[in-house]
Amino acid sequence: MRVAILGTGLIGSSIGLRLRRDPSTDTEVVGFDRYTEVARQAQRAGAIDTAAHTPEQAVEGADLVILAAPVLAIRKLLEEIAPVVSREAIITDTGSTKTEVMRWAQELLPAHTGFVGGHPMAGKTETGPDAADPDLFEGARWIVVPAVRTTEGATNGVLWLADRMGATTIFMDAAEHDAYAAAVSHMPMVAATALFSMEHASEAWPELSELAAGGFKDMTRLAGTDAAMAYDIIVTNREQTIHWLDRYLVALREMRDQLADPASEQDLFKLIAGNEFEYVAYRNGKVGREEKNKSPDMSGYTIQDFLMGGWAKDKIDEIARSSEERVRENAQSNRDRRDV
Amino acid sequence: MRVAILGTGLIGSSIGLRLRRDPSTDTEVVGFDRYTEVARQAQRAGAIDTAAHTPEQAVEGADLVILAAPVLAIRKLLEEIAPVVSREAIITDTGSTKTEVMRWAQELLPAHTGFVGGHPMAGKTETGPDAADPDLFEGARWIVVPAVRTTEGATNGVLWLADRMGATTIFMDAAEHDAYAAAVSHMPMVAATALFSMEHASEAWPELSELAAGGFKDMTRLAGTDAAMAYDIIVTNREQTIHWLDRYLVALREMRDQLADPASEQDLFKLIAGNEFEYVAYRNGKVGREEKNKSPDMSGYTIQDFLMGGWAKDKIDEIARSSEERVRENAQSNRDRRDV
Repeated sequence: MRVAILGTGLIGSSIGLRLRRDPSTDTEVVGFDRYTEVARQAQRAGAIDTAAHTPEQAVEGADLVILAAPVLAIRKLLEEIAPVVSREAIITDTGSTKTEVMRWAQELLPAHTGFVGGHPMAGKTETGPDAADPDLFEGARWIVVPAVRTTEGATNGVLWLADRMGATTIFMDAAEHDAYAAAVSHMPMVAATALFSMEHASEAWPELSELAAGGFKDMTRLAGTDAAMAYDIIVTNREQTIHWLDRYLVALREMRDQLADPASEQDLFKLIAGNEFEYVAYRNGKVGREEKNKSPDMSGYTIQDFLMGGWAKDKIDEIARSSEERVRENAQSNRDRRDV
Repeated sequence: MRVAILGTGLIGSSIGLRLRRDPSTDTEVVGFDRYTEVARQAQRAGAIDTAAHTPEQAVEGADLVILAAPVLAIRKLLEEIAPVVSREAIITDTGSTKTEVMRWAQELLPAHTGFVGGHPMAGKTETGPDAADPDLFEGARWIVVPAVRTTEGATNGVLWLADRMGATTIFMDAAEHDAYAAAVSHMPMVAATALFSMEHASEAWPELSELAAGGFKDMTRLAGTDAAMAYDIIVTNREQTIHWLDRYLVALREMRDQLADPASEQDLFKLIAGNEFEYVAYRNGKVGREEKNKSPDMSGYTIQDFLMGGWAKDKIDEIARSSEERVRENAQSNRDRRDV
């Protein structure tokens, strides 16, 4: 089987490495990258058999074409391969947003071309072929987005690919994918970029950068996303990213106002404690609608039980007492002032 | 030497473990915790020699007293130990905010008591004595905040403690500490809490929680901070946390508006690319005023060079071209409409 990988960065090269090492399949992998040096690195890393000089050359005679480039670059690749790609070829992509990619494929590829959108939900901070890892997709989710005119054969080809990579496939439509991805990935990436950009622009940055520890690094890691990838993602998923940014702005402002108002202290603690409770459950595997991975420790124990018992209740009582004390002190000092 | 550790959670127990394993010092460690079971766990973990029943009992005859509790609990501990603590004892704390702690120590402790504030900048997600690690502070920064009336002896005692823990000490005043910590730690913690809370409250949470990958986990990790610790931090550093939250809200809104306006595409890309460039430099050790850890790869290479050369310039040109094309297309379609 002949596979063409267009874009031999981290994702493309990781796919190539895994395919070439897979003993169950006899695959010839042709790679193309807009940056010749990147294709050469991929070849040296063992991710591709040969490097093509043009996208057209790469897809010649290919049974499976994988577009593994930043989203806007996928459009250009589709334009380039459309006139030459085989009618029998299965074409897929690994782009982080899907609505625009599906639209371009529909517009640009000849009818009857087997296009199926894909999004392997895996990555790492390092980029490029030298960071490629044949196990990058092991256990990851691989979103599969069939087009209106996708054939069963094309869909099966992409399911086969995801399976060879060790990933679990989930079917979604493009709009659904982009809405969810905006919430858990694209908006958080913008939030990380805004945070780092603001802190870096501060006059105190030399001191801040010295003091910043793990928490700050966690919160800003996504600011290290490859700039072309990040830009392409948010401009091709603009409305959904803005929708979630607006919700985040509201949530942040609510917490800010709660913190600013000492009368809200009990509510603020309940928010923080409830959140910690749910967060720990989430990190222990409480995800999805069925809660199939629900942590046994949590079963039957609710946030209400938590807030009404043990140390959380002690803390709420303590906050209530100290709030009352402050009210009494204020009243007393008002009386004292009147006495003067 | 007799050391009293009041609060035997992660931080207190990690200090105890390291002190008791240190062959260069003969130390007896007495522990106290408001929750008897936590003190018992600390004893079983080898972090303390004996568990005291009250703070007063713990500090009896102690040469060094370490208050390792959430910030608001430190106030109560200071009230309790004030009548009984030895005049010669050195007292320090590990609280995450310092202005209020220094004020309480000044108000509550007898004059001439050797109090020096401290903040070891280390931690991990797990809490409690069972997560204690004698190497938790190895290589970490330990902020030291002398009080107005601190003696040289007391300061040296705290420097000795930080040194035994393998940490690097930095002197700061309390207000300076709290301003910086709000920027890189307390505000990001609120931002993580607001993010998780908003996503968790969404009707789509079952789907979102299934899809969320590493980026979302990074951005929300601080929402797992122990609730009592988190609450105490932000209410004792309220003004600074709000100040940085307000700056973050402005930065987020600016990026949101830039994303919403297609005419800002080039500026948006420059922001993202410049940010990635500076972020990579930061993660490679470009911190502080002296840039003493500056990565050799980055030296002499500026963000301007980056944006003016190589792929970043290609991308900016491409964005410019596609913006112009859109303008032409719009103009054409306006003409077409007029022709009808």
